Amino acid sequence: MSKGKSTKKQILDTAVRIASTFGIQGITIGKLAGATGMSKSGLFAHFEKKDNLQLEIMKLASENFVETVFIPAFKKQKGEERILAMFENWMSYLNDGQTLPGGSIFISASFELDDRPGELRSFVQKSQEDLIRNIAKAASLAIEVGDFRKDLNPDEFAKRLYSYVLGYHHYKRMLNHPDSDSFIRKAFCDLVGDARTENKKHKEIKLKVAN
Amino acid sequence: MSKGKSTKKQILDTAVRIASTFGIQGITIGKLAGATGMSKSGLFAHFEKKDNLQLEIMKLASENFVETVFIPAFKKQKGEERILAMFENWMSYLNDGQTLPGGSIFISASFELDDRPGELRSFVQKSQEDLIRNIAKAASLAIEVGDFRKDLNPDEFAKRLYSYVLGYHHYKRMLNHPDSDSFIRKAFCDLVGDARTENKKHKEIKLKVAN
Repeated sequence: MSKGKSTKKQILDTAVRIASTFGIQGITIGKLAGATGMSKSGLFAHFEKKDNLQLEIMKLASENFVETVFIPAFKKQKGEERILAMFENWMSYLNDGQTLPGGSIFISASFELDDRPGELRSFVQKSQEDLIRNIAKAASLAIEVGDFRKDLNPDEFAKRLYSYVLGYHHYKRMLNHPDSDSFIRKAFCDLVGDARTENKKHKEIKLKVAN
Repeated sequence: MSKGKSTKKQILDTAVRIASTFGIQGITIGKLAGATGMSKSGLFAHFEKKDNLQLEIMKLASENFVETVFIPAFKKQKGEERILAMFENWMSYLNDGQTLPGGSIFISASFELDDRPGELRSFVQKSQEDLIRNIAKAASLAIEVGDFRKDLNPDEFAKRLYSYVLGYHHYKRMLNHPDSDSFIRKAFCDLVGDARTENKKHKEIKLKVAN
């Protein structure tokens, strides 16, 4: 890594943390200058304008998500095992207070940007489509290997799972419900239980949840 | 209604529409002046500062919700009928392009404000708690009258339903999925189906969905 790149990466890591708390629209070159100890003009040299900064933040957040959630899960066996890994990784990702002190940037950005067309919204939209498609793909493979029933709709499975994650984020971050972790775990287990083929219906679901 | 009050109500109706698109933090006295044709100083006379305006917007949005969703539903029989009415009213509320051109203010405000303590966040939080409690209460009554099974957890039922609504809002508003209405209807029907007592399991669920 060249020095310029590594400095930029450090700035962006800080920017991701700020955006996690203040939202992607709440990020400013001024706030970032305060948090990194760099001058505004130094930051302008890296990003030129706020739009570029916002887009680079979302790109880094997206890379972080893929690296933490999907890549390790896709190393697991096709089928339920991979779905469980995906869910566990997702929970770790959302609860990593170091990287995301204020919760998922994608979730807040989605609700912030829904009525504001532009490059940033398009990027967030595409990332969200990829997310749903990746979960649906994993559910299709689980049908293929006989873990999930043939009449399961993989897209519906993915969208219900993501709805629970949105609810979880809301109950935990906005409402500060202490039982949010057990809410999402139980909802997830019921969703998986319902997706299974008849002969696997009653096998225990073992989640390793770190948090 | 005195003239002052009715003018204020009209301003607030406009403000609710603006906040629906730009978010509760995106509302400014300037934008409101532009939309209502009033002077900024005229608006200051009504609200004094932006904080008051934001809080009054959320209060009006909350009243609208209760009047559209809960009050007519609570006139229905206790039990599944009331739950169905609540859901149908909720869908009409969310899809009323006249009042909420940009979707639910509460949903976007929840994600905007989760990391920003203050009176506004507290109000939104309380409204969300009331919402979940009202659905859970309706589910408890459905257990009481024998429509729903005794081992159903009403709070869980309410939180799963609200998660689906959050997902619905996201898929429809952010991702522009044309099948979002059928997504939420099917998710809701499965949730109700799963909540029912064994002898009512296979009765058809008839939804009147206006939109």
